[in-house]
Amino acid sequence: MKDFADATVRVRYAETDQMGVVYHANYFIWFEVGRVELCRHLGFEYKQMESEDDTLIVVAEASCRYKRPARFDDILVVRTRVTRFDKRTMRFAYEVLRQPSDELPATGETTHVICDHLGRPKSMPEKYRKYFSPGHSDGSAHSDGKSNSA
Amino acid sequence: MKDFADATVRVRYAETDQMGVVYHANYFIWFEVGRVELCRHLGFEYKQMESEDDTLIVVAEASCRYKRPARFDDILVVRTRVTRFDKRTMRFAYEVLRQPSDELPATGETTHVICDHLGRPKSMPEKYRKYFSPGHSDGSAHSDGKSNSA
Amino acid sequence: MKDFADATVRVRYAETDQMGVVYHANYFIWFEVGRVELCRHLGFEYKQMESEDDTLIVVAEASCRYKRPARFDDILVVRTRVTRFDKRTMRFAYEVLRQPSDELPATGETTHVICDHLGRPKSMPEKYRKYFSPGHSDGSAHSDGKSNSA
Amino acid sequence: MKDFADATVRVRYAETDQMGVVYHANYFIWFEVGRVELCRHLGFEYKQMESEDDTLIVVAEASCRYKRPARFDDILVVRTRVTRFDKRTMRFAYEVLRQPSDELPATGETTHVICDHLGRPKSMPEKYRKYFSPGHSDGSAHSDGKSNSA
Repeated sequence: MKDFADATVRVRYAETDQMGVVYHANYFIWFEVGRVELCRHLGFEYKQMESEDDTLIVVAEASCRYKRPARFDDILVVRTRVTRFDKRTMRFAYEVLRQPSDELPATGETTHVICDHLGRPKSMPEKYRKYFSPGHSDGSAHSDGKSNSA
Repeated sequence: MKDFADATVRVRYAETDQMGVVYHANYFIWFEVGRVELCRHLGFEYKQMESEDDTLIVVAEASCRYKRPARFDDILVVRTRVTRFDKRTMRFAYEVLRQPSDELPATGETTHVICDHLGRPKSMPEKYRKYFSPGHSDGSAHSDGKSNSA
Repeated sequence: MKDFADATVRVRYAETDQMGVVYHANYFIWFEVGRVELCRHLGFEYKQMESEDDTLIVVAEASCRYKRPARFDDILVVRTRVTRFDKRTMRFAYEVLRQPSDELPATGETTHVICDHLGRPKSMPEKYRKYFSPGHSDGSAHSDGKSNSA
Repeated sequence: MKDFADATVRVRYAETDQMGVVYHANYFIWFEVGRVELCRHLGFEYKQMESEDDTLIVVAEASCRYKRPARFDDILVVRTRVTRFDKRTMRFAYEVLRQPSDELPATGETTHVICDHLGRPKSMPEKYRKYFSPGHSDGSAHSDGKSNSA
């Protein structure tokens, strides 16, 4: 039962810069794609947590280490796991793996505060906590299927 | 009394692609910078029209013609004018002028529908119509001053 | 034998704006995802045309009509076809179809000039012309498989 | 003689997300605007270092702390300083200050490796080292004037 989710992205022309490689800020967008996929993998939709339960996972800190460039049309897997969870804050870790070689263009971490839509800190609603408890995962093929269109 | 507003943008590294020039979709973002600057030039703040009067100028059509490339660190003036206005729809025209040469990397047009925050079409509130009436302009230095930080 | 290719994208949080819907400029980025996927579907890789044959399909005009909003996490199919081809210029048409309903958030067109990496117009190399000749398509499952990670 | 440079950006509609605030990845783009402005302030153009001396300041690590949201049309000053410099690596620190209040929406750091256009590490050319030596700054009005169009 895996504790991570993989989202696949293919590098877009728009994501390159004149250096001929991916512009570094795009990795943070992919990390978000990874978080959303991890929620799906864990058993819920991030958008529903926002719309139905007024619960947002707001970024408080974000960091990325760039190890090798990614390039236009590369297929990258964004592997995302929860590395810390309490009622009010969360941390995620990311690995960006180029396919099929599994080279590692980048790794990153983000720290988050649980907030309502007005940005006021709150506790994660009870109904979602179980998804982030150690070892929880439904690892559904359903989620894996969707992970390719992230 | 000029019927257009100029917003100045400097091309960001993030806005280039591996061709070594500005990625084409960015011009539509600059057109929006131009619209917001034109509102300011005409005498009101777009954000207040949204927040205080629940009036959004929603894009219904957008087009751009690319004549020559713009490059990293170029200083570009986005010259924006209203080319059509009625209570429910508007059209804007744009010229992107490289400084200091006034070369024209691109021109464009956008058509808009006036909507509320739920995307429902509505009429432009009376208080804003005057700003778009033919020939209206306050051309304040205030507006010109701000135009450089768009 | 279909004359179009479908690329699937899932709307990213980064692609929304404060209106709560997809920011309009992002559709042009998705059109590019669609073009790249169409090349793959037709039997070649756009990146190889660039790197090995110094042939770029440079955007000369782009337009989009917005019919209904797309939202965060929507799954969208970008359906792309060639609507005009001659040695030196090309035109593509796009439909953005929300899944599973096939609602049509947007349609668009782009016109292109064939250039080398210095932006000088050139003719499409002989080896690629066949791919764009009327009716050509290999419609390979290979291409369809890749289309989901665009 | 100040050891930092200020670049002013106005928040674009495209930079907001459906939370109604600036999408977090955009701060890294603004940090780059700040670096380019700092180079100008120190007395040289980053683009010339790239094009004439085949010297790129490539991002190896990037981090940002988000303290309060920035919103559409906010005027932000990106204050950038060099916090470490040796021949082969550099570090920059950033403060993003909302105007006119000087509230601090975010701070960040980036670490860089000096490379050629192929991404191979190299030493910073002699001609540029002086600009990064402790206390160097020309603080020219020229640079300040340009800083508003970053």
